[in-house]
Amino acid sequence: MTAPLFDTICFVGIGLINSSLARAVRKLGLARRLTSLDCDPEACRVALELGVVDSASADPAAEVAGAGLVVLGTPVGAMEAVTQAIAPYLASGAIVSDVGSVKTAVIRDVEPFLPEGVHFVPGHPIAGTEFSGPAAGFAELFQGRWCILTPQAHTDVQATARVRALWEAVGSTVEEMDPAHHDRVLAVTSHLPHLIAYTIVGTANDLEGVMEQEVIKFSASGFRDFTRIAASDPIMWRDIFLNNKEAVLELLQRFTEDLTALQRSIRWGEGEVLEKHFTKTRAIRRAIIDAKQDR
Amino acid sequence: MTAPLFDTICFVGIGLINSSLARAVRKLGLARRLTSLDCDPEACRVALELGVVDSASADPAAEVAGAGLVVLGTPVGAMEAVTQAIAPYLASGAIVSDVGSVKTAVIRDVEPFLPEGVHFVPGHPIAGTEFSGPAAGFAELFQGRWCILTPQAHTDVQATARVRALWEAVGSTVEEMDPAHHDRVLAVTSHLPHLIAYTIVGTANDLEGVMEQEVIKFSASGFRDFTRIAASDPIMWRDIFLNNKEAVLELLQRFTEDLTALQRSIRWGEGEVLEKHFTKTRAIRRAIIDAKQDR
Ligand SMILES: NC(=O)c1ccc[n+]([C@@H]2O[C@H](COP(=O)([O-])OP(=O)(O)OC[C@H]3O[C@@H](n4cnc5c(N)ncnc54)[C@H](OP(=O)(O)O)[C@@H]3O)[C@@H](O)[C@H]2O)c1
Ligand SMILES: NC(=O)c1ccc[n+]([C@@H]2O[C@H](COP(=O)([O-])OP(=O)(O)OC[C@H]3O[C@@H](n4cnc5c(N)ncnc54)[C@H](OP(=O)(O)O)[C@@H]3O)[C@@H](O)[C@H]2O)c1
Repeated sequence: MTAPLFDTICFVGIGLINSSLARAVRKLGLARRLTSLDCDPEACRVALELGVVDSASADPAAEVAGAGLVVLGTPVGAMEAVTQAIAPYLASGAIVSDVGSVKTAVIRDVEPFLPEGVHFVPGHPIAGTEFSGPAAGFAELFQGRWCILTPQAHTDVQATARVRALWEAVGSTVEEMDPAHHDRVLAVTSHLPHLIAYTIVGTANDLEGVMEQEVIKFSASGFRDFTRIAASDPIMWRDIFLNNKEAVLELLQRFTEDLTALQRSIRWGEGEVLEKHFTKTRAIRRAIIDAKQDR
Repeated sequence: MTAPLFDTICFVGIGLINSSLARAVRKLGLARRLTSLDCDPEACRVALELGVVDSASADPAAEVAGAGLVVLGTPVGAMEAVTQAIAPYLASGAIVSDVGSVKTAVIRDVEPFLPEGVHFVPGHPIAGTEFSGPAAGFAELFQGRWCILTPQAHTDVQATARVRALWEAVGSTVEEMDPAHHDRVLAVTSHLPHLIAYTIVGTANDLEGVMEQEVIKFSASGFRDFTRIAASDPIMWRDIFLNNKEAVLELLQRFTEDLTALQRSIRWGEGEVLEKHFTKTRAIRRAIIDAKQDR
């Protein structure tokens, strides 16, 4: 047990990420009371039944009032609406943070609606699975993982320090970053890979002559890894692409150029070019293993 | 211990796949004597040291003569040359099989060089890892996996049955298929995913403004799965793309069209189209889990 960092924490949207954070907070005694605001009665019921939070409902007056920290954990497209809904109940001095996968758009959607005296510390834990909902969460999700915070020049330094302490307590290493830079880095490491995986799984599904059943049967040789990624929550990913449009589209342009070059090498039988490219990518994998990010 | 299916089996190219098969054969007592022909002295040394085979060298006279079954396990681009090298030493009635990832090209490269009375049964175990070489193999690799055989109209039925019995004995389920159909199915489930993974990892590596180190650090959110695929052996993959050109290029065309459509939806903010596409791909993942191919 650690000393509590907050009296009451309110989790807005008690899905995979927020329920995992709530479990870790409870396990480590980092707050005295946990509440959840969620528009989905089933999510509230499950969260209460599993003992993830002490109180859960769709009523912001009941759940938000009195919270020293409010963590927004809905799909990013819903963050503007939930901020407007909770704003009247936020106490002066309260900290609002979030776990959304894009940062520039979330800052744009949240900050203008917060009352005077409420501090906003945008965040993004680099951890997750392809499952959703409160039953999918687990307390260890953030252990040994990175958490990116994107405070701005005007963000209260004390508030940032308290959010940082929370993520460090649940086992993450915190890195601070400019929001636009965050969105560019994540476009590479997460958003483009998901888009590609979604595409290829769709392409396979539409093929004539090759049975869907055969694709599934023989998926062990590469395809399977893509389907895992392409099984992630549709709403969450719709919102990510719509809210990190510029970075994703720019990167997609480069990806398409590179793919066209490899395609051309295959067509013209340029074995050496292919071998050289594949050797280079292998080195990147080695670096990831060395950085211990290969779990 | 099962009854031996062959007296002597010769493994040509004692890498990941062939050394795994040799280990399983030995463990289950499926042959009396195991030999290996490999042009790499280090691979021979390791295979002998680990007790994977009884004899290993670059000398076809020593390794191939007397073998009732010869399994070709080199990269597919080398199969024509190894077939020419071993042909003089193949006994009449011997069976030649292979584990190559493409089938039409292998049949084209191997069959014309086999002496009269030698049976060719092309095969492809749908199992593997991103590692190579005899030290990376393990006896359980084929358990619960599929193995595709692509015998032709003129292939000896007895020979096919014996190769089938071998794969079933090491734990695989055998499916027979037309070679061209095999190449189309594998283009979807394996070749295109690998090409895409190789591309995206290369794209990430060439990015200015985003540090390579950052990409590695935050790779847990999707990119990591691609790097694992893109770490596969460069020569093996060069040969696969060069030898399954038509199927891969045709599929790539469709993939590019589908990606362009999603790109357009992102650009124009068509949330419903994205959500619908992502929901469809999720169903495919479910089917794979139901088919127990999700390990
Ligand atoms: N999953 C990951 O791998 C991952 C990783 C890092 C960050 N993130 C980010 O974390 C956030 C949550 O992701 P998650 O995977 O935890 O999602 P999730 O499991 O789907 O949970 C989201 C929760 O928010 C609720 N919700 C949606 N709209 C709401 C609204 N207007 N008001 C109140 N509650 C609402 C959902 O209820 P319903 O059941 O009604 O939809 C659900 O309970 C997203 O912004 C995502 O980008 C996700
Ligand atoms: N890895 C997979 O996931 C997988 C799955 C199914 C099928 N396959 C197929 O199985 C075959 C072998 O793959 P693998 O992963 O086992 O490869 P690997 O571990 O790289 O082993 C290939 C072996 O063949 C040797 N070799 C190369 N050219 C040769 C030649 N001209 N004469 C004699 N030996 C030669 C290599 O020696 P060097 O050390 O000198 O290169 C190496 O020992 C390939 O055709 C591949 O397409 C692979």
